[in-house]
Amino acid sequence: MSIGNLIVISGPSGAGKSTVVNRAMETRNDICFSTSVTTRSPRPGEIDGVDYFFINQKRFDEMVADNDLLEHAVYVSNSYGTPRKFVEDKLSEGMNVILDIEIQGAAQVHKNKPEAVMVFIIPPSIDELRKRLTGRGTETEATIEARIQRAVQECGEADFYDYIIINDDLDKASEELSSIINAELCRFDKRYELLSSFGK
Amino acid sequence: MSIGNLIVISGPSGAGKSTVVNRAMETRNDICFSTSVTTRSPRPGEIDGVDYFFINQKRFDEMVADNDLLEHAVYVSNSYGTPRKFVEDKLSEGMNVILDIEIQGAAQVHKNKPEAVMVFIIPPSIDELRKRLTGRGTETEATIEARIQRAVQECGEADFYDYIIINDDLDKASEELSSIINAELCRFDKRYELLSSFGK
Repeated sequence: MSIGNLIVISGPSGAGKSTVVNRAMETRNDICFSTSVTTRSPRPGEIDGVDYFFINQKRFDEMVADNDLLEHAVYVSNSYGTPRKFVEDKLSEGMNVILDIEIQGAAQVHKNKPEAVMVFIIPPSIDELRKRLTGRGTETEATIEARIQRAVQECGEADFYDYIIINDDLDKASEELSSIINAELCRFDKRYELLSSFGK
Repeated sequence: MSIGNLIVISGPSGAGKSTVVNRAMETRNDICFSTSVTTRSPRPGEIDGVDYFFINQKRFDEMVADNDLLEHAVYVSNSYGTPRKFVEDKLSEGMNVILDIEIQGAAQVHKNKPEAVMVFIIPPSIDELRKRLTGRGTETEATIEARIQRAVQECGEADFYDYIIINDDLDKASEELSSIINAELCRFDKRYELLSSFGK
């Protein structure tokens, strides 16, 4: 069994990242999401080890100090991070592990695990992004404009990604993600053992 | 329309390279083979510009001198080469151009066009390779053993390839080739313009 890849997925809010990943998941069983650690309290119904690994701040700080987190960030006074061991165990099982995170976290993963596959998903245009954000009906016009400005800024900072997917058509975008996952499993470094053992 | 990729395919005789490519061609219309130049005379039925571009030695030497060939080699006293312009015209038309060549030629292409996608196709095992070569019924046992030795040697020299495809199952192998072609079209460098123009 071959070892899976860590696939980091980022992109502006409204790009449809999780929709694209979920569609790809319907067609294959070798993808899973990473489970994060967090210092925030579980909400009703949340299960430790499924939704998150719930840990205290002391343990979190230890993990940071020991480089046990591939990336970490603070959000509304709580700490969140991606546990290296969880990811590596899943990769060893042959799973491709998806990390849906923002650019700042992605940059940390890129540094901590250079072999991670970096995918940036964008909406087809500003107009379409505005339409999608407006369509949610949950945000004010000012918030939407702020999100659009943020999207433009993120696109300018995404120069360390390996692949770009334009989510115009959902089927096409999820097929592209699936192709990227397949292709990365064919990489020379992933199959070098097979090549070097040929004839031995 | 996006610009296609140059896909270099190599691998031992008996790996099933052309079968894999032909199967992939049945499922998509954005792949074509490159047409080589050669100094040998056309055989009955061969058409200039389709089977080969038939040129004389003087013209061939000029093309080499002008770096108009991505790779070239001599085979049974005749010269063969891959014309850069033909390839680049096809790429501009959005085609992914397939070059089915040996390692030595592939190394030249890799040097002359570093963005070329290098794919190495291998049979699943020595035993299977022997079976396939024997199955052709056209070669002596000594020739088959020589081909097997050559295959082992080639596998040891293939360290500049980007991808390895193991042609165990033809459908799986051609799907992997297709995934590689798709994924390479999603590469950051191929779509950078779309990203950088986002919001402008």
